[in-house]
Amino acid sequence: MPHLRWNDRTNMTLLMDFYELTMSKGYLDQSLESTIAYFDLFFRAIPEDGGYAIMAGIDQMIDYIQALQFTEEDLKYLESIQGFDQRFLDYLRGFRFTCDIWAVPEGTPIFPDEPIVKVRGPIIQAQMIETMLLTTINHQSLIATKASRIVRAAKGRPVLEFGSRRAQGCDAAVLGARAAYIAGAAGTSCTICGQQFGIPVVGTMAHSWVQTFPSEYEAFAAYARSFPENTVLLVDTYNVLQSGVPNAIRVAREVLEPGGQRLRGIRIDSGDLTYLTIQAREMLNQAGLQDCKITVSNALDEYIIRELLLQDAAADSFGVGERLITSRAEPVFGGVYKLAAIEQGGQIMPRMKFSENTGKITNPGNKEVWRFYDQATGKAIADLICLAGEEIDESQPYEIFDPFHTWKRKVLTHFTVRRLLEPVFIHGTLNYRRPSIDECRNTCSRELDRLWESVRRFENPQTYYVDLSQKLWDIKDQLLHENKQLI
Amino acid sequence: MPHLRWNDRTNMTLLMDFYELTMSKGYLDQSLESTIAYFDLFFRAIPEDGGYAIMAGIDQMIDYIQALQFTEEDLKYLESIQGFDQRFLDYLRGFRFTCDIWAVPEGTPIFPDEPIVKVRGPIIQAQMIETMLLTTINHQSLIATKASRIVRAAKGRPVLEFGSRRAQGCDAAVLGARAAYIAGAAGTSCTICGQQFGIPVVGTMAHSWVQTFPSEYEAFAAYARSFPENTVLLVDTYNVLQSGVPNAIRVAREVLEPGGQRLRGIRIDSGDLTYLTIQAREMLNQAGLQDCKITVSNALDEYIIRELLLQDAAADSFGVGERLITSRAEPVFGGVYKLAAIEQGGQIMPRMKFSENTGKITNPGNKEVWRFYDQATGKAIADLICLAGEEIDESQPYEIFDPFHTWKRKVLTHFTVRRLLEPVFIHGTLNYRRPSIDECRNTCSRELDRLWESVRRFENPQTYYVDLSQKLWDIKDQLLHENKQLI
Repeated sequence: MPHLRWNDRTNMTLLMDFYELTMSKGYLDQSLESTIAYFDLFFRAIPEDGGYAIMAGIDQMIDYIQALQFTEEDLKYLESIQGFDQRFLDYLRGFRFTCDIWAVPEGTPIFPDEPIVKVRGPIIQAQMIETMLLTTINHQSLIATKASRIVRAAKGRPVLEFGSRRAQGCDAAVLGARAAYIAGAAGTSCTICGQQFGIPVVGTMAHSWVQTFPSEYEAFAAYARSFPENTVLLVDTYNVLQSGVPNAIRVAREVLEPGGQRLRGIRIDSGDLTYLTIQAREMLNQAGLQDCKITVSNALDEYIIRELLLQDAAADSFGVGERLITSRAEPVFGGVYKLAAIEQGGQIMPRMKFSENTGKITNPGNKEVWRFYDQATGKAIADLICLAGEEIDESQPYEIFDPFHTWKRKVLTHFTVRRLLEPVFIHGTLNYRRPSIDECRNTCSRELDRLWESVRRFENPQTYYVDLSQKLWDIKDQLLHENKQLI
Repeated sequence: MPHLRWNDRTNMTLLMDFYELTMSKGYLDQSLESTIAYFDLFFRAIPEDGGYAIMAGIDQMIDYIQALQFTEEDLKYLESIQGFDQRFLDYLRGFRFTCDIWAVPEGTPIFPDEPIVKVRGPIIQAQMIETMLLTTINHQSLIATKASRIVRAAKGRPVLEFGSRRAQGCDAAVLGARAAYIAGAAGTSCTICGQQFGIPVVGTMAHSWVQTFPSEYEAFAAYARSFPENTVLLVDTYNVLQSGVPNAIRVAREVLEPGGQRLRGIRIDSGDLTYLTIQAREMLNQAGLQDCKITVSNALDEYIIRELLLQDAAADSFGVGERLITSRAEPVFGGVYKLAAIEQGGQIMPRMKFSENTGKITNPGNKEVWRFYDQATGKAIADLICLAGEEIDESQPYEIFDPFHTWKRKVLTHFTVRRLLEPVFIHGTLNYRRPSIDECRNTCSRELDRLWESVRRFENPQTYYVDLSQKLWDIKDQLLHENKQLI
């Protein structure tokens, strides 16, 4: 086999679980290739018991779909394994994606059990994109969700994504930084993210810079001469308070101020960050460097940032690495992709996955998702999963109820509603204005503001309501009763 | 900005932390661009308190280094941010990598504190590759290490990598599957890994296949007709013992056996796997299907696999997803990249990172790593970090000692030694026969066999010795004494 460079690939078509191909051949053999199926992508639980997740990854889903095709090289490989016949290979050779795809826009808060992507189309095609849709959306939604927690803990102070070196590969570094930015991170240390996505990039020096010079002072002075307008000094190579901060102050006075420049900042990457930042702040202030910012880093996450701020650490911004870029506390976003319906004779026949674990029973049918907002406050009240075509009349009261405890009911009045799922592909053609990353970021900020604080807190949040319409609940209930012997 | 497709990239040059660029300009401004530096890549702790880690990611490091160059597009971007002057941009335009790189071969067991990659060359260049070296080696070594634990727990039964959909992006899916295979996984569900790396790919059907048909029996029968020689049936869509296994047996009898075929296997993806596999095995055996294999999946890891086997679950192979592909229990491999020495006037001047945390103090100097094996058993006894050029005479006793507790000493006799670091690039040119993935896998299997079982167990393993030579220890001790006021 020739040595192929993974990086050279633009076509991710074969990044699919092999069962998608075996099933495809099976569907073709059964003449089911034109059967129209509906699949829902949804998740069952918010990472770290949080109150909300953040949608991300649609832009990369679009790239993937647009490049979807089987090359002759792909077909040759497939022919070399398993018993794929010529008819199936010819089908793949002529493969053209014709499904409809709806998705919740990137940056939107999302909740368990509601479809965040819906695919309708010939079953082979709709099944074939399962893996890449899940990989893309699971990954970026995971990182966006984690980043949102961290950004909120920082209470307006910039959070900088510093994790590339600990990311699970290049994609994880780059697209993780993208997701973090959508969720409110202020910038990244990953240079290519600036080039690719326009994310602000930040960075100054490593400990190795300081160690290269005969003294810390000389290292700082050299840096200040190279970047007089943007001098940020890493002050913990030797000793923060005895050496780093005094040398930084000396460089501000001796190198920067004679040229009319100010010391922009210092960074502390180890030690007791509360104590060190408070002491360093005091020393900087006494030297007249009140405008010098203090950035801290080193194994930060939302809990440590909250602690630092509760202890009045003098931190102006936070560099967050491995615990953000891998979502270390919960590195899995459990999105799944499930068959919801099949069209037969023009009828939509709902399909449901049964399970002994009642939480794993899926919602059947061709569905839509609405978000209800309170007219007076603008805050989101609940999401409603209903059948496609059900209309919500904003002028009429609407009764919602808990699908697991159906006696828990509430009549909503004075609300506005919004459809969460937007068309992205229609009959395989992109029909979507791809928002810029800053628009996604604004969506995130705006829509988070529309959640109650009780839902947004990162510990013990209030559970946001995701209810089913009566019609959908009736279908589900009927299917459960018809099949209860299976469960 | 034009909408660039991340997938299109072959050149990962700008996947670097921005400080590598600011430092580069600084070094150039200081006329230090030709100063020769030594950097070590090493890690400080084995994930999950394991006894060993597995090296992986060198092949992708090579790809990255070979493609390293700044395009005009890259330079244009860099010019647009920060105060990069024309001299620095010209330097980048003419950038040609000329460092030497040594690395421990993929598949080798590795231990904390020893250099697993060493870079020697002009400081700008050696610094610039920090991020990508760490990203690549941290990611793949993490997954290889986790996979090795899982493979060992399965005690010879095949472990199949099923995690693409939960991976942190495409790279994580594909290169994670690569790393898992090196560490002993038998195959993957990720099709592109078969094409790219020749890894065996596996997969049969999803629940959606079963739900598409009017009945489970019809779904199984259809699949068996499409893949008579490789029929593996997913038996838990409805009810494993009441429906799934009986229908599988019926298909074996009615569809496969008339054509002279056997039912190859069933897969169970939910429920009490111990109970279900034991019952299913009994039912299959009674139907004369002793040769039908049972694969289990669903949130498996080394602990659950050990439990299943302790309980005599009748599992013949294991499909492992998110807990392998993200190394969920510890998704970070903490490799770091530290300056170890600078050449000045032909002399190698050791450099060391000091820290209040004594575990974070680095080993200075230009170093090598040797592995000592006992002649009689062939088992690895200890690794030794020494200065480059120190020779080990196998015919003479060699005293090793614990670098933290120097009174703990042991005289080794009747040993053989092996250098762990092999040259990969010499003066920027690849000087390495890239082993095939199967060679890496064999290295892993062979070298793991050479560790004592006490080191290999995945809970409370014996700590493997990584000692320093007397010469290296003396240099470190001297630097510590000279600088103790800093700590």
